[in-house]
Amino acid sequence: MAEFSNRFEGITGSAIRQIFAYLSIPDMISLAGGNPSPETFPASQLAALAEKLLREQGEWVLQYGATRGVGDFIQYLRDMSTDTMRPDDDLITLTGSSQGIDLFARTMLNDGDIVLTEAPTFLGATQTFRLAGGKLVSVPLEDDGVNIDVLEEKIRQYRPKFFYTMPTFQNPTGVTACLEKRKAVYRICAENDVFVLEDDPYGMLRFEGEHLPSIKSFDDGHHVTRLSSFSKTISPGLRVGYAVGPKDVIQKMELLKQGADVHTPNLSQELVMEYLKSGEFDAHVREVTDLYRNHRDAMLEVLDEMAPAGTTYTRPEGGFFLWVHLPGDLSSQKLFDLCLEKKVVFVPGTPFYVDGGHENTLRLNFSMPTAEQIHTGTRRLCEAISEGAAGGK
Amino acid sequence: MAEFSNRFEGITGSAIRQIFAYLSIPDMISLAGGNPSPETFPASQLAALAEKLLREQGEWVLQYGATRGVGDFIQYLRDMSTDTMRPDDDLITLTGSSQGIDLFARTMLNDGDIVLTEAPTFLGATQTFRLAGGKLVSVPLEDDGVNIDVLEEKIRQYRPKFFYTMPTFQNPTGVTACLEKRKAVYRICAENDVFVLEDDPYGMLRFEGEHLPSIKSFDDGHHVTRLSSFSKTISPGLRVGYAVGPKDVIQKMELLKQGADVHTPNLSQELVMEYLKSGEFDAHVREVTDLYRNHRDAMLEVLDEMAPAGTTYTRPEGGFFLWVHLPGDLSSQKLFDLCLEKKVVFVPGTPFYVDGGHENTLRLNFSMPTAEQIHTGTRRLCEAISEGAAGGK
Repeated sequence: MAEFSNRFEGITGSAIRQIFAYLSIPDMISLAGGNPSPETFPASQLAALAEKLLREQGEWVLQYGATRGVGDFIQYLRDMSTDTMRPDDDLITLTGSSQGIDLFARTMLNDGDIVLTEAPTFLGATQTFRLAGGKLVSVPLEDDGVNIDVLEEKIRQYRPKFFYTMPTFQNPTGVTACLEKRKAVYRICAENDVFVLEDDPYGMLRFEGEHLPSIKSFDDGHHVTRLSSFSKTISPGLRVGYAVGPKDVIQKMELLKQGADVHTPNLSQELVMEYLKSGEFDAHVREVTDLYRNHRDAMLEVLDEMAPAGTTYTRPEGGFFLWVHLPGDLSSQKLFDLCLEKKVVFVPGTPFYVDGGHENTLRLNFSMPTAEQIHTGTRRLCEAISEGAAGGK
Repeated sequence: MAEFSNRFEGITGSAIRQIFAYLSIPDMISLAGGNPSPETFPASQLAALAEKLLREQGEWVLQYGATRGVGDFIQYLRDMSTDTMRPDDDLITLTGSSQGIDLFARTMLNDGDIVLTEAPTFLGATQTFRLAGGKLVSVPLEDDGVNIDVLEEKIRQYRPKFFYTMPTFQNPTGVTACLEKRKAVYRICAENDVFVLEDDPYGMLRFEGEHLPSIKSFDDGHHVTRLSSFSKTISPGLRVGYAVGPKDVIQKMELLKQGADVHTPNLSQELVMEYLKSGEFDAHVREVTDLYRNHRDAMLEVLDEMAPAGTTYTRPEGGFFLWVHLPGDLSSQKLFDLCLEKKVVFVPGTPFYVDGGHENTLRLNFSMPTAEQIHTGTRRLCEAISEGAAGGK
């Protein structure tokens, strides 16, 4: 039989998806997912907007659209992005911002090119980079962003094509890069002619602390492409995001998008635009942020009270996730088995590292479970850590 | 400055898009496009369905969905596809069937692998194959499908990874492969272990003649993947299609789709499913087919009456397009200039051939213009052919 492309060698599929099988067990609490809470979706407003759009403008909403995106929507997004867009930049709408990871990777990579990532980093991105022929090298993430010395060292050693970073409320750690590190990342990458792919799906969900400028906002040399999403603030099911980047990068991404899906569904783009224009968006984001702040607080409250000595965890200022280091030599895989008995699941940390290892880490999600589930689930987790650390069971 | 991927070498973008610039000239008639007629969109039905779906099921329609597609929709499509699906086949929903061309190409191709296409063939596909690293070789298309002897010869000579074919109402020619050639294509490809990508976006729009079985329906050896679309029968703006193919092919396409867009927007999938279930679809397809039959007849009527001796053209039994060979040594590029003055545009044939040439060919579209525009536009075209053939101007 003829063989498939060799791009699939070593690709195993997402480790997270394998955990989904446990979710059908009665009374199981999941701190494993990454979905927004469905109570945040403005469903009734979107229902009314969809009806009106299709009834009044069906002839063109239902027709083929431009690959770059709906013209009015592009203009609206440009106007929203004045703090990050540079004069020479362009903007393209995406079928979810993760499409931008795929299009950018294929714009940049030849087989065997090096991609630099954070350690740990977003799983979906590493799979996409590998499928596009990239080889992955990573830089340790610290509490205030990547280790800048190692970043510089790895860039000199490996000459990567680009550095993939999620500087705000990172998935999986919840870490936010400080201003100095943002500037340093830009400076070092630009000096060494390394592109930056700045992924920012969570940035609008800040619980506290000061807004920080994007890496893109420092870009006076056509090095940074930034991905934004409405998946965490309006709806992931509509699949609407966008990329801002240098004209020539966006043009290449557009050429690949012609084949990828011709264009993002017009109805999805229009629904997001009309909701943004309705004036309800800002208040909505505040409500969503309040909800997730409460969720994070519920999780931290239990961890602060119950986590055994030696357990450390991040205190994210926004987003969906926090990151745990287990005490002693307790592995998250052993803990996972203990937690299954107690009916709570999470994602072990190893798959988030491109070189594996870090068996004592794990990711907790606080967006999707209710505050009550978070409370109960985190208690169960802490009990399991205590048992595991004591060598119990 | 760091360089982009070398996949863009020789990629120029679509020749068709460059013609769009002329469409803003007042009174210009376009026989160049490929859009469905907007009067075929069931906008008011979709408006009511969208409102109901979002209001009653917003919590999950707006949530992340499965990469493979909405479960009920997959089952519905499987039930629709019993005449073509084989027992070992699987099905995946797509963000427009052209996404399937991209995912299939990346599933199959390593850099430099050969893809066999028809000559002429669909422009969007050749660009996608090239961007995926494929080298293109083509087989002449005749009035009843590809030349089977040349197909066999090229397969032996080039050992292609797969053969891309649109056997029914092909874009750009309107040609339909006869039953014998469908069987021969399958037999020769299977014997030589060449995959087949059968693209069928127009198959439901048959004006007359007997329905022919798909190449997929002969597939007892896991060689054929078939792409279907709702873009020509319901709406292209919703971006909904699907692929049926061997389990292992669909699984690889799914892995690539995780990165491509995670999943096709749930609302698009649900709208198509609910419209299919409403019972209106069959009658709707009959109405749409009647409309396009009238359009084709209007075009053929003028061509039969006015086309100068030596002009030949296809008489498609369905779809959106017909294909013209010009008399003598009149080139379609020269004709294009003459037609611009008369205010009618079409697409010259050369870009549809992977090796160029065939300067005396062109594509005409009859789906998007009104019957009156077709009548006037085709008359203008015939007058220009007469002038061009006479060496006038």
